[in-house]
Amino acid sequence: MTKILILGGGGMIGQKLARRISENDIFPAVDLTLFDIAFPPGGVPAKCVTGSVSDPATAQSLAATRPDVIFHLAAIVSGQAEAEFDLGWDVNMMSMWHLLNALKDEHDGSGGTYRPRLVFTSSIAVFGGPYPDKIDDEFLSAPQTSYGAQKAACELMVNDFSRKGFIDGLSLRLPTICVRPGKANAAASSFFSGIIREPLNGVEAILPVADTVRHWHASPRTAATFLTHAATLDTAKLEGRRALNLPGFSCTVAEQIEAMRRLAGQSAVDLIKPQPDEMIMKIVEGWPRNFDPQRAISLGFVAEQSFDEIIEVYMQDDLGQS
Amino acid sequence: MTKILILGGGGMIGQKLARRISENDIFPAVDLTLFDIAFPPGGVPAKCVTGSVSDPATAQSLAATRPDVIFHLAAIVSGQAEAEFDLGWDVNMMSMWHLLNALKDEHDGSGGTYRPRLVFTSSIAVFGGPYPDKIDDEFLSAPQTSYGAQKAACELMVNDFSRKGFIDGLSLRLPTICVRPGKANAAASSFFSGIIREPLNGVEAILPVADTVRHWHASPRTAATFLTHAATLDTAKLEGRRALNLPGFSCTVAEQIEAMRRLAGQSAVDLIKPQPDEMIMKIVEGWPRNFDPQRAISLGFVAEQSFDEIIEVYMQDDLGQS
Repeated sequence: MTKILILGGGGMIGQKLARRISENDIFPAVDLTLFDIAFPPGGVPAKCVTGSVSDPATAQSLAATRPDVIFHLAAIVSGQAEAEFDLGWDVNMMSMWHLLNALKDEHDGSGGTYRPRLVFTSSIAVFGGPYPDKIDDEFLSAPQTSYGAQKAACELMVNDFSRKGFIDGLSLRLPTICVRPGKANAAASSFFSGIIREPLNGVEAILPVADTVRHWHASPRTAATFLTHAATLDTAKLEGRRALNLPGFSCTVAEQIEAMRRLAGQSAVDLIKPQPDEMIMKIVEGWPRNFDPQRAISLGFVAEQSFDEIIEVYMQDDLGQS
Repeated sequence: MTKILILGGGGMIGQKLARRISENDIFPAVDLTLFDIAFPPGGVPAKCVTGSVSDPATAQSLAATRPDVIFHLAAIVSGQAEAEFDLGWDVNMMSMWHLLNALKDEHDGSGGTYRPRLVFTSSIAVFGGPYPDKIDDEFLSAPQTSYGAQKAACELMVNDFSRKGFIDGLSLRLPTICVRPGKANAAASSFFSGIIREPLNGVEAILPVADTVRHWHASPRTAATFLTHAATLDTAKLEGRRALNLPGFSCTVAEQIEAMRRLAGQSAVDLIKPQPDEMIMKIVEGWPRNFDPQRAISLGFVAEQSFDEIIEVYMQDDLGQS
């Protein structure tokens, strides 16, 4: 029996991950618990616990159930963390601090036998410019947003608690996940999905940046695959560097739009309305555009090879097309 | 009037810094307060406040005095942070968290006018191997000690609180400070000073590593100069990357010993007793050996150009020789 806990299990990635775990034989026999502030109606059937990860008592009670694998996906997204400084640091950093200390207490209380796998969703927002053409695995983390700084601080803690043997953790610097199903969220990156999702659903979409903007993408299906791969990886292969730049596909907004034209025609493209937004342009300008993630590739992480493929995943998984 | 607060003002660097500030006209008129858990007898004359930086109420009361410049040097040293995990994270990371939040409260309370300069002593321990021959300004921070992880986490916070305008901070990744006067401390790097200091005082010294070990050094005098330079630097020049690799001098233990032979003769060298220590060897093996700190050099930070010079500074400043 593998006891699995997903923090942020009510979110989009959390639900995709829960479904992947439920419907596949990745883990021998699964006892799955989802934790979040709220859950979507008609979500994946599993034990659902409602609460806030930033409450130390909650961290303790979750740790006391001694999950074998914990996925920590819960976060305040980038736009909101920038607007609500205290909330961002509290949820995005202090919740990790409380969780790690609670897990360490369980480790100590078990006489050192309890040592859960912790898979943490970090982000390419840990990077800040100026950038090389492709960011390699040795490029510094110099975040220029609160969200990025909070994720980077969590990576340091996950690494150190792991090095000391209290947990066995790793941090995945996810590409921007695209195409996100459902509604736009407060992430400044939300439009990268919106300009594909809305037109494919016959709805107008706002494009707040120039179509020359280049970015780094992977699908929600790939994100769920990254997470289960990380949960079953031999962490000795990480050689003490437990934060990984993951593979993705780099393209411009114009190339995203061309891919949609190929798959859904000009009528879909016509639904994209350029409407420059200075604030979003400024945030996105500071983001990475391309990577050379050799370590993750050699560790078996695999992403899409074209933006067409990324759109097709959305059409299959979320629009029910074959 | 410049109101200056030195956290860790009772320590070796704190005292050197306090003396440098008191005896020079770096700041127009100085109101100097030193804060530490204890102060040395016969220390630099200044207002001395005793307490622990890890107490949130203390952070608040210190911030409420609204210093113009705060030097944060207080830390649990590397060896102790490795042995006492909870204490290390509490003092080395959480104290920064409490301090920054207290300063942010003062900033908010002042209607945004209070925005102190914060100079934080980080460390080359933020780096972890494998290393290039010389670490450049874009090399990742992947610490392999708790001390290094705590310093790196503080750098992220200092950067983000500064970016948001609550403080105007920067983090200095100091080389190993050598030759430290006084007694050996619990830092794993303590022997780099001990093998010079003890023989120059006619006392035997233990060398716990091979003399082929290469390391990165600067004198205490240079450390104090770095700190005041950082306090008066135009931080706009940092362009959002507020953690700096500082200049130093790279040499092997054998080269340290040769420099001492030139300055103090064979009789001093004969007092060094090799006595390999597996634990210290293992820690030191993970440390950086050489840097190419171009940003800091272009910003006007200057260090010694030879180990002879580093020994001479000790003989002048701490042994009273000319």
